[in-house]
Amino acid sequence: MEFPSKLIEDAVTEVSKLPGIGKKTALRLVLHLVKESEHKTAALANALSRMRQQIRFCKTCFNISDTEECSICQSHRRDKTVLCVVEETNDVMAIENTAQYNGVYHVLGGVISPMNGIGPADLKIDALVDRVAKLPTLKEVVLALSATMEGDTTAFYLHKRLKEFPVKVTSIARGVPVGGELEYTDEITLGRSISSRVPFQI
Amino acid sequence: MEFPSKLIEDAVTEVSKLPGIGKKTALRLVLHLVKESEHKTAALANALSRMRQQIRFCKTCFNISDTEECSICQSHRRDKTVLCVVEETNDVMAIENTAQYNGVYHVLGGVISPMNGIGPADLKIDALVDRVAKLPTLKEVVLALSATMEGDTTAFYLHKRLKEFPVKVTSIARGVPVGGELEYTDEITLGRSISSRVPFQI
Repeated sequence: MEFPSKLIEDAVTEVSKLPGIGKKTALRLVLHLVKESEHKTAALANALSRMRQQIRFCKTCFNISDTEECSICQSHRRDKTVLCVVEETNDVMAIENTAQYNGVYHVLGGVISPMNGIGPADLKIDALVDRVAKLPTLKEVVLALSATMEGDTTAFYLHKRLKEFPVKVTSIARGVPVGGELEYTDEITLGRSISSRVPFQI
Repeated sequence: MEFPSKLIEDAVTEVSKLPGIGKKTALRLVLHLVKESEHKTAALANALSRMRQQIRFCKTCFNISDTEECSICQSHRRDKTVLCVVEETNDVMAIENTAQYNGVYHVLGGVISPMNGIGPADLKIDALVDRVAKLPTLKEVVLALSATMEGDTTAFYLHKRLKEFPVKVTSIARGVPVGGELEYTDEITLGRSISSRVPFQI
């Protein structure tokens, strides 16, 4: 692609580094900004750099937070006897949206992935073990990790590390998605849904 | 959507103002930036604000340019007897990519669109007429506008304004796209492709 201006080229290069955004989309976005007022681009650039500079993480659960401890950890309405382990902040948001969970969280910051050079030490796993050790009232740790090889590896590792504590370690259910048809469900998912069948509920 | 942080919320709000980017995509992009080093977000924000602040337009053709006059207008290799009228900078880039055109350009900055409150005065139409008037060597003005109602309206208006000058006004061909099948071509396009048929070329 030949650019009419180095400024445009630089902006397109930076924007196209974002995941899922190619050169063509980046160019479209940048040319959109050129058409809009200067103020709008400034607002975008400021919001991004301010966010990245000032972002903080909850000292307890490592979720993104504007305060030293996040609102979920601070809340007296949340059940502190259940702890849900997730990979990222967006997983917390997704689970909060279901309104099916009232416990607290622990954000690992990723999963164990030797292929990408991410080992247990790169994640908040020691902090999780510390937290479990210091919470005698804790009854259950729910592992809500991706159903991928990396997620399963991480779940297995966490299970091993948490074995010594008197807490129940559970995992979110794997099975046929709501609305899914058996015919189009892969055999591993279908197999798991049979082996972990549950009492019928009305 | 409930955000764990006002900073994230502000960034998502700004990013989702971009065309074709919804709240979910914006959140994914913002959380990606949180995972990456602070330096990368700074590079992105700087490239965008620098681009928007310093961007200039060619004084002759109004294409985006880093210099007072763009490289196409300055070039002695370009045929100054043919002038191609386009809507935006990306149209210039698209036509340049075809390597089928060696004339110069005139970027209108949009098309006449009463629905969006854009009239002839909002576009570089007076500048085009001035330019045609001052270029006695000009032989042809090629209208390369979108094949939409707004594009056709603009082409009609330009044709009227340029009638008084001794230049040929042409339009890029409308027809069946290369690789397109007649069966799936809409009837208006097919009709235009028949009425503007051309001698067969080997």
